[in-house]
Amino acid sequence: MNGAETVLRTLLNNGVDVCFANPGTSEMQFVAALDRHPAMRGVLCLFEGVATGAADGYARMTGRPAATLLHLGPGLANGLANLHNARRARTPVVNVVGDHARSHKPLDSPLESDIDAAATTVSHWVRRPITSADIGPDTAAAVAAALSAGGPDVADRSRTGTSGAISTLIMAADLSWGESTPPAPRLPAPPLRSVAPADVEAAAALVAGPEPVALLIDGAGLSERGLRAAARIRKATGTAAFCPTWPARLRRGTGVPAIQPLGYRAEAVNQQLAGIKHLILVGAREPVASFAYPGRPGLLTPPGTRVHRFVPDAGFDVVGALMELAEVVAPDVVESDVLASDGVGADALGAGGVELGAVAGLPAAQGASPSLVNEPLCTGNWARFIGSLLPEEAIVVDESITEGMNTLAPATADSAPHDVLGLTGLAIGQGIPVAAGAAIACPERPVVCLQADGSALYTISGLWTQARENLDVTTVILNNRSYAILRAELDRVGGNQAGPAASALFDLSRPDIDFTAVATGMGVPATRATSTTELAEQFTAALATPGPHLIEAILQPS
Amino acid sequence: MNGAETVLRTLLNNGVDVCFANPGTSEMQFVAALDRHPAMRGVLCLFEGVATGAADGYARMTGRPAATLLHLGPGLANGLANLHNARRARTPVVNVVGDHARSHKPLDSPLESDIDAAATTVSHWVRRPITSADIGPDTAAAVAAALSAGGPDVADRSRTGTSGAISTLIMAADLSWGESTPPAPRLPAPPLRSVAPADVEAAAALVAGPEPVALLIDGAGLSERGLRAAARIRKATGTAAFCPTWPARLRRGTGVPAIQPLGYRAEAVNQQLAGIKHLILVGAREPVASFAYPGRPGLLTPPGTRVHRFVPDAGFDVVGALMELAEVVAPDVVESDVLASDGVGADALGAGGVELGAVAGLPAAQGASPSLVNEPLCTGNWARFIGSLLPEEAIVVDESITEGMNTLAPATADSAPHDVLGLTGLAIGQGIPVAAGAAIACPERPVVCLQADGSALYTISGLWTQARENLDVTTVILNNRSYAILRAELDRVGGNQAGPAASALFDLSRPDIDFTAVATGMGVPATRATSTTELAEQFTAALATPGPHLIEAILQPS
Repeated sequence: MNGAETVLRTLLNNGVDVCFANPGTSEMQFVAALDRHPAMRGVLCLFEGVATGAADGYARMTGRPAATLLHLGPGLANGLANLHNARRARTPVVNVVGDHARSHKPLDSPLESDIDAAATTVSHWVRRPITSADIGPDTAAAVAAALSAGGPDVADRSRTGTSGAISTLIMAADLSWGESTPPAPRLPAPPLRSVAPADVEAAAALVAGPEPVALLIDGAGLSERGLRAAARIRKATGTAAFCPTWPARLRRGTGVPAIQPLGYRAEAVNQQLAGIKHLILVGAREPVASFAYPGRPGLLTPPGTRVHRFVPDAGFDVVGALMELAEVVAPDVVESDVLASDGVGADALGAGGVELGAVAGLPAAQGASPSLVNEPLCTGNWARFIGSLLPEEAIVVDESITEGMNTLAPATADSAPHDVLGLTGLAIGQGIPVAAGAAIACPERPVVCLQADGSALYTISGLWTQARENLDVTTVILNNRSYAILRAELDRVGGNQAGPAASALFDLSRPDIDFTAVATGMGVPATRATSTTELAEQFTAALATPGPHLIEAILQPS
Repeated sequence: MNGAETVLRTLLNNGVDVCFANPGTSEMQFVAALDRHPAMRGVLCLFEGVATGAADGYARMTGRPAATLLHLGPGLANGLANLHNARRARTPVVNVVGDHARSHKPLDSPLESDIDAAATTVSHWVRRPITSADIGPDTAAAVAAALSAGGPDVADRSRTGTSGAISTLIMAADLSWGESTPPAPRLPAPPLRSVAPADVEAAAALVAGPEPVALLIDGAGLSERGLRAAARIRKATGTAAFCPTWPARLRRGTGVPAIQPLGYRAEAVNQQLAGIKHLILVGAREPVASFAYPGRPGLLTPPGTRVHRFVPDAGFDVVGALMELAEVVAPDVVESDVLASDGVGADALGAGGVELGAVAGLPAAQGASPSLVNEPLCTGNWARFIGSLLPEEAIVVDESITEGMNTLAPATADSAPHDVLGLTGLAIGQGIPVAAGAAIACPERPVVCLQADGSALYTISGLWTQARENLDVTTVILNNRSYAILRAELDRVGGNQAGPAASALFDLSRPDIDFTAVATGMGVPATRATSTTELAEQFTAALATPGPHLIEAILQPS
């Protein structure tokens, strides 16, 4: 058995059985080993950013890491941006990066570069096996490290959300082709830690106390079980609950207690948190602005609000902590009593297209179903139609950015139950790859990818992988023909309107991109919608037909 | 004046007047400043790898660096692979990477990452201005550092080829928006160094001596002046001359003394260098294999060959050294006497589709012009048609990889005079962006991009930039529907035929990619050719019509 086969078999022993690959010469032994081990599913991606994004989407849905197979430093470099998003999502990913044979490295051949330095920018764990005896143990350690912030059993993770990290195993070609030792057995990941009883008591005292309190929940707390525990707390005490703007994975829809995402902009968050005296972090980090602006604070917690780190953001059993807290403050509210209406209603989620500004504690309200008025598509209406037509158990990959910032959460609050996967690290180009990975993770569920136009082009060849694997993904390109968020940012930063030279750098017209042609060229059937009726018809048709489809929604300024 | 404007004006003062940009919020002040300084041409790229590749192509043709404008760590990460190629090409590039405001960095907001570590993997020079007073001087230093291996005057570089480096200036947002000091004036780059007279004498003694000698020339030595000097030496002494397989820039065609590229594979190089007792490096590095293989040496110089470092590979006046050597060994051969036939002829360049195996010292031969027989396109014939139709002063961007490896050099030896820009760092996805940058550098010259299919998808949105800027680029996609080089590598590494799982990872069919649809979607008119006649007709038509075009050449196995 050669070293590559030891890696592959150790991955299988440790529950990793999908590999998103863009291999090269230094990874050939791994590729060859795939033929001997059909239990490992190799998925070809035509760009490494597709491979890493797909691994992210896969693990967000399964809780289990996928492997990526990347070619030397430049291959890893091409995958870094989506690994950045995965790191921010706390997704477990195991990168296998092939390197030159050790005798070859001093020759500084054309593809030589500092793989270790690049890997360290996104990885929690980076290691190179030194001898053939290290290969199995190091591979097992890579998987365990990816799950280091996770729970006691890989199989459990699909119920508890992701709380992992990025591992990068750098395999020298001579170790891959050389005789190796047997694969390592399964190495258990460290168990999730529980919060101390005293911390539960302290949180309970705040929640049950007289001052306004809000929970900020992330990670596994945004699963249905976590949201039900939060709703019990809310029903008994009125405690508001928030989540990050674009969390890694959020359960939403009919029957699921809603939670209010913090707004993308600081002004919205200030309004949402106004009057809150205690912000209790439950698997979440203290909210910070995405960017600094002159004279404005980067921390978004209002000056009068105290922050309490109840459940630190990694390695803790977030759901367990929420349930313990609910047991203390809401012993009389049993989980089956909690209704969706015990969450935050659609009104509070910013329906009507206004910036998310609803204050915590509004009474729950049922969002009105949109009437199918035929009108030109625009920022203000597309999300309502998607929301009303969303199929049961959809996986919604949300890279809608500007177009969905204030519209998607309210529009889908009353949709059929679904999961939303957000743009955690703000590195654009995540949507199409994450959708591919999620579809491979959950072949029985429809995947809906809501994809901004500018961002789509970063990893557009992910459409080909969707076609190759015949994945049930419906991509809706939200085409406003601009980097709309940057146009808004220029006004915020500079205070003045953009002139022609600056405007040209946000403008995706001249020429207009025809996403139907691009998608068709990649093997994905595509249509274009300019009206709400067209969008509804095309979306329904795409969902009714297995395999990938793309709808280019041309959005008028609203 | 704010800090961003100081950067922009200092760049202009230092001869940098094109900026390939994919900006974000942290670069808004720079974008806004473009409206006040129309002398800086901002070129929007829809992916950072397009921006960095375009900067590479631009500087290969002008000798002057372009700036890139990149958004934080993930933006830089997306541009790393083509910066890797630029580094290997010794191209001067000045990256301006926006970072969060310094007060914001400790908050670890979503886009925060280690920019410095990522930058260091490709950059010769990385710096962050610390105070506003540093901004101008640091920007000027960035340009000088990019040209640190170059000559005394920026304007001279267009005649001497590139010999630069990658500079990365990291600008905190608060320095960009804050009040700044005036722009810095031009900072002269260090002059090129000359080789010592004793080294010229020593090289001359070898060249004029009894043992077989070959020159291995790179960098500016591959300009027409360098090649003429090498041809004088060859005419007087019979000394063979080689260049790397895919140099950064090589002059070629009718009237230009030809030079023999080393083969991509070690076997070919071994054959080419067989019998050579002395290999004299002239601005080149000792040849090494791209990859190691079990039991084979990585250094390609045969055991009996001594290597002499006549002109070290950076910072030296390569052309001057070749001319001095010619003066000593070929005083009676004046430059105007040197004919194209004094170079290595087409036969020695591997005509006939065989692996480059011609030994040095063959008599020069005129390549036969291909007769326009109409037959299906294949590896064996496409290059001859392109070569025969290549327009005068074309810039040929060569990312043909497998399809051009043994066919392009012989097919273009007798083409109209042109420059070839090669895949220096073997990080695929360079062709389309480099073509865009070269076209912006030389608007009066036709650009022909010979682009492998698999590699094209890495940076396919560069086609949109070609359309936006109406660049005169004709892209020929060499579509063999596979990562053909990897299929060959698997056989080399593993010794056995690929099974279905391995084969699937090299196969770009299922579904076939329709590059004409993809290009049309990006705004570039496109056609498909399956026969030699169709290729000839479409190529001629594309060249006759200004603006970008794409031809998808479907290649049958030959």
